[in-house]
Amino acid sequence: MIRIGVYGLGKISYRVIQGILYANNADLYAVCSSNLEKANAFKEEYGARKAYDSYEEMLQDANLDMVYICTPNYLHAKHIQMALNNHKHVVCEKPMCVSSKELNACFDYAKKQNCFLMEAHKTVFTPLNQKLFEVISNKQIGQVKSIDAQYATRLTETISGWHFNKPGSGCMFDIGVYPICYANRMANSSILKVSRFQDEALIEYENGCVAHIATSWDVDMENTAHIYGTKGSVTCKNFWKNTELVMNDKKIVVEQKSDFTGEIEHACTCIESRMIESPVMSRNASLEILKVIGV
Amino acid sequence: MIRIGVYGLGKISYRVIQGILYANNADLYAVCSSNLEKANAFKEEYGARKAYDSYEEMLQDANLDMVYICTPNYLHAKHIQMALNNHKHVVCEKPMCVSSKELNACFDYAKKQNCFLMEAHKTVFTPLNQKLFEVISNKQIGQVKSIDAQYATRLTETISGWHFNKPGSGCMFDIGVYPICYANRMANSSILKVSRFQDEALIEYENGCVAHIATSWDVDMENTAHIYGTKGSVTCKNFWKNTELVMNDKKIVVEQKSDFTGEIEHACTCIESRMIESPVMSRNASLEILKVIGV
Repeated sequence: MIRIGVYGLGKISYRVIQGILYANNADLYAVCSSNLEKANAFKEEYGARKAYDSYEEMLQDANLDMVYICTPNYLHAKHIQMALNNHKHVVCEKPMCVSSKELNACFDYAKKQNCFLMEAHKTVFTPLNQKLFEVISNKQIGQVKSIDAQYATRLTETISGWHFNKPGSGCMFDIGVYPICYANRMANSSILKVSRFQDEALIEYENGCVAHIATSWDVDMENTAHIYGTKGSVTCKNFWKNTELVMNDKKIVVEQKSDFTGEIEHACTCIESRMIESPVMSRNASLEILKVIGV
Repeated sequence: MIRIGVYGLGKISYRVIQGILYANNADLYAVCSSNLEKANAFKEEYGARKAYDSYEEMLQDANLDMVYICTPNYLHAKHIQMALNNHKHVVCEKPMCVSSKELNACFDYAKKQNCFLMEAHKTVFTPLNQKLFEVISNKQIGQVKSIDAQYATRLTETISGWHFNKPGSGCMFDIGVYPICYANRMANSSILKVSRFQDEALIEYENGCVAHIATSWDVDMENTAHIYGTKGSVTCKNFWKNTELVMNDKKIVVEQKSDFTGEIEHACTCIESRMIESPVMSRNASLEILKVIGV
């Protein structure tokens, strides 16, 4: 059982905590926010054992195994470093870093400290996408030649200022990473070439698969993933959280309590196995995402 | 009334002839094939006035105004030149030429001979797509930011050898030109940048619109066009020949007797107006298609 402290109690943290509560090898040990009242409210509501209003203080708690970082993107690297200073394992919300250079520095330091570090991309760990990766690997749609995935939404609600004006801000970092991460996973190959025009990219993989990804804050898109193979195809709407898809005109349906549980269970399993890097959402997998963004 | 001679009586010519028969300003004057029996059969079936087994002979017929060329791609430039030598106007099946250099030479010669020359891209002239161009131009979906269109089909029937081993062969020339032509038309702007990886391309236009086009002989795709604007979107399956589409959840339906009639009526109107180039399917429009293919 990995004792987790969630740092940053904004919009995403509710869903992360749900994911932790359903995970079979995770323990919601602590919550931390600069606002103690908020931290206490979370502690009460979700049954955490500790509430902190100081990140430093939480990191000194000897019972804490791992930090799940939910702070704004441009602060991630700093907060990862602080956790590693204190020999805590880390899972950090996407985008974990704002550049390849920053990302490599984080993984280098995690290695030095012998701590587990992983970028939180739930997309590749949802039950549906784990199943999909399996059926694709079994060549059930033949050889995958083409992937097309979008995630776009017209901004109707106000999002925080840092989404626009800090490193790691913008639509590509915010929601574009979902189709990128998905395409990279399902292509199951290294990137050979990438072209990015505005918020769309075309990717060619070493195995010959080509992927197109699109994202936008200005238009609504289908938000559907299509995977085309030589013997069939897959269609999945809202592919980053869905529980069903259509493969060769047949539905595949899975159970899912929370779309965050898969990634949390995976990270905890890695930590329990004394691994310092996920074999799935590895340093290289994170670098390949940043390669598409071009940073 | 423009008197047309159809040269090359292969698979596509049946549909071209249907298009001519429904056009209000075109006259199916002659048909020509190296096989006289075939030419005579076409003449009888479709009511042409003349049947030729010699292209040279047909081109010397003083009553002929225009040639519609349906021969294999790699022979188009030669057959265009022969028609222009004889001061005949020309509409030539797509791809009209196998390179930008060849295309420019054809248009230069047409200008010199004061003859009309147009590449036959029915896609931009179908009643539905003429209507769509109009509603998009009227900003009914706001500013168009993104276009995604595919045309793919797994090769199940045997197609001729020249589809594989001659200049102007391959999937991109065969069916890829449909989504390219469509995207260029609906983006309604010049190409700024293009990246092509295998049989997919990402295009950025000067007005900021980005298009993704995909084609394949190895997989089946949705074969749907999506146009995403700041105020809505358009979805159209089999966009190169369809008579209905969905715009902002509402259907637009048009009448169409033949998907070839629009381009033929347009060409005949241009010729009747003594134009030597179409203002829609111009030399530049043909060059922009080849720019995406990269030849």
